[in-house]
Amino acid sequence: MFETILYDVTDGIATITLNRPDRLNAFNGTMSKEIIAAFDLTDTDDDVRAVIVTGSGRGFCAGADLGAGAATFDYATRDGRGPVMADGTIDWAHPDVRDTGGVTTLRIFESLKPVIAAINGPAVGIGITMTLPMDFRLVADGAKIGFVFTRRGIVTEAASSYFLPRLVGIQTALEWCMTGRILTAEDVQAGGLARSRHAPGDLLAAATALAREIADNTAPVSVALTRQMLWRGLGMAHPMEAHRIDSRSVYARGRNADAAEGVTSFLEKRAPTFPDRVSNGMPAFFPWWENPEWS
Amino acid sequence: MFETILYDVTDGIATITLNRPDRLNAFNGTMSKEIIAAFDLTDTDDDVRAVIVTGSGRGFCAGADLGAGAATFDYATRDGRGPVMADGTIDWAHPDVRDTGGVTTLRIFESLKPVIAAINGPAVGIGITMTLPMDFRLVADGAKIGFVFTRRGIVTEAASSYFLPRLVGIQTALEWCMTGRILTAEDVQAGGLARSRHAPGDLLAAATALAREIADNTAPVSVALTRQMLWRGLGMAHPMEAHRIDSRSVYARGRNADAAEGVTSFLEKRAPTFPDRVSNGMPAFFPWWENPEWS
Amino acid sequence: MFETILYDVTDGIATITLNRPDRLNAFNGTMSKEIIAAFDLTDTDDDVRAVIVTGSGRGFCAGADLGAGAATFDYATRDGRGPVMADGTIDWAHPDVRDTGGVTTLRIFESLKPVIAAINGPAVGIGITMTLPMDFRLVADGAKIGFVFTRRGIVTEAASSYFLPRLVGIQTALEWCMTGRILTAEDVQAGGLARSRHAPGDLLAAATALAREIADNTAPVSVALTRQMLWRGLGMAHPMEAHRIDSRSVYARGRNADAAEGVTSFLEKRAPTFPDRVSNGMPAFFPWWENPEWS
Repeated sequence: MFETILYDVTDGIATITLNRPDRLNAFNGTMSKEIIAAFDLTDTDDDVRAVIVTGSGRGFCAGADLGAGAATFDYATRDGRGPVMADGTIDWAHPDVRDTGGVTTLRIFESLKPVIAAINGPAVGIGITMTLPMDFRLVADGAKIGFVFTRRGIVTEAASSYFLPRLVGIQTALEWCMTGRILTAEDVQAGGLARSRHAPGDLLAAATALAREIADNTAPVSVALTRQMLWRGLGMAHPMEAHRIDSRSVYARGRNADAAEGVTSFLEKRAPTFPDRVSNGMPAFFPWWENPEWS
Repeated sequence: MFETILYDVTDGIATITLNRPDRLNAFNGTMSKEIIAAFDLTDTDDDVRAVIVTGSGRGFCAGADLGAGAATFDYATRDGRGPVMADGTIDWAHPDVRDTGGVTTLRIFESLKPVIAAINGPAVGIGITMTLPMDFRLVADGAKIGFVFTRRGIVTEAASSYFLPRLVGIQTALEWCMTGRILTAEDVQAGGLARSRHAPGDLLAAATALAREIADNTAPVSVALTRQMLWRGLGMAHPMEAHRIDSRSVYARGRNADAAEGVTSFLEKRAPTFPDRVSNGMPAFFPWWENPEWS
Repeated sequence: MFETILYDVTDGIATITLNRPDRLNAFNGTMSKEIIAAFDLTDTDDDVRAVIVTGSGRGFCAGADLGAGAATFDYATRDGRGPVMADGTIDWAHPDVRDTGGVTTLRIFESLKPVIAAINGPAVGIGITMTLPMDFRLVADGAKIGFVFTRRGIVTEAASSYFLPRLVGIQTALEWCMTGRILTAEDVQAGGLARSRHAPGDLLAAATALAREIADNTAPVSVALTRQMLWRGLGMAHPMEAHRIDSRSVYARGRNADAAEGVTSFLEKRAPTFPDRVSNGMPAFFPWWENPEWS
């Protein structure tokens, strides 16, 4: 189905495997489109309760494919068209002036399902920045990580200037991005980027255990709402913005069958069976950010 | 004076004790109103220099009172009125679509006095989210904490999607809220939610020591301004916003008797005695956020 | 050249030394102006790849010079003019109602070069808040730190209500500022304010090593852009804001000589030699925040 990734759904967990192992799963335009298409699948498939993203072979993702050499990041030269006008100036509003990494991470940011990065090996450049809008980063011992942009003469991308300072603090984010240093698995765990560190052979089992904990105990619609509420709450200017969404969310969820089952099962000390589904159970005001009246 | 809480002021420290011990201090509409009323008291009483919030008996707060069973969160059914219109659609702008937890936390957010949560036992659902706008969370060994909303079929509330990612980071906030897992005192300390962890018998003494340190050494008006400046600074988009408030605050405070006493006592190596009071000493531009011209 | 600071550039590293050692380098209006002038020099000198700020003698900066005693913070009395009108009310819009500390930190925030604070001794009041917009804080064992404002009857300043909660979290920021407690080097490292702690004799070598790592491996224009992207990303409301800047930055940088050299040198496994310079190599849309069309 896909050219640069593998896609599998088993027992409620979708696994997206970056799959160009001969290139350490280097990122290119096709991979961006296929990752986006895979998240369209996970969002619309009610059987998917969580998503794991990992790499094929010994790497996670080596970053942008440098096969074009010196012209790798020179999009006008590579494409033979685009926003460079006859007089040499750039039409900054041209649609080609759009970072492919950011197009990818903004899609992952919108995911309705929890997203777990299982970083099994080297993750460099877009290979690590693509994981920033994922919910959890589990990293294998020995994996090398690098925000190497300043060493390649370019800059942080994929909206990482939004994500990274919030994930690791501004002081650590500045150090990693300004030096472009290669980091160890221990470094990224100490800095707060990795949720946990695992022996390589245990990595996928740990990711699966976390996915299972969510899938087996929680209401899918509640998780989808919670994911968007927390990520968007992170950028809000005042708690009143959260209160506006909370009030509608609590009200909408509280009168649905899930809430009755959640309380009843708790009082009866049994596991819940939640009936509502993401495909048709999201409240009427969702996605609230597309309607200024709601937000 | 109150039905669901106890209120006491001793030696400059107000203690609000959630007091439904037979229900593990479960939260209800009366408790919300009474907490709000108590913070109105602490704000207006110059004798109160700090506020401690704790629970009566073996719990802190077990969360929403589930006495209504399956209909607990179905506000329309419970109240027999509200925003559900004849055709079944919801009037989202109706004033009944307002999360009671958020009404409570937004009031605590406005407090002019430092607020210390002394979490003496289980704090679940609103029992823990009510503490997020408090300044400090001290937790007793053995206390269980849970952001259990997705396990009840509802969602995070009380503006916690604003507060929690800022307190513990987005990765940890997502894990706690998506799994709905019960956390230990160690977990919430490691995650940064709890300032410190104490043997149950030492908890109130530790909270009191922190309250005393503030009460005995600092200027009340300076503390009230600092509380609002830091909490609101957390949501600002640019340091220039802080600079606008700082400039006015430093100017206003610098020409008052407190600043003269603060510098003089320091130079004379003696404890200060600050004359200004919150009841009449807040600067003219406070609260600045109610006047767009100021902010 | 300067009265209150020393300025030196050696091997690509500028060192700004606060230099009033008989007053523990206490801050005054002249020092503010001279720090700002020094950052104008470092920004425009392509030979400067990083900036170290440290103190002369045994202190870093003792805070505001209290030589004026009780009137220290009473700007109207000290200056004999300003925004206090005949009827005693204050003209809050008057240009004299401007915090000098904030004027200083807002300038440092704009720096195009990495800024490393080497905190060699006591850093109190503006002595520590001036370091908050710097990228890295290295602290010497034994240094005392204090956000002492509430003990002097004034308030946090220098836009620290923006910076501090983001650097150390709101809970720790509130504790340090509300108590006004004197902190140890260990405290500020544990709280996340200090990047690292060093024996006093090793402090400048550690600061220099970090500066060298950036200077010797990275593209100057990439570092200047990255610094502003990360610091401003920290205040953004949504990753789409970052994506707008990223897209233009990646596009602009990708077609320049630096990107060709960055990729080529990596593929050839040799150290890069980046040709672009900050003085004439910043992209046309920089500084984007001065043009609403860009941001």
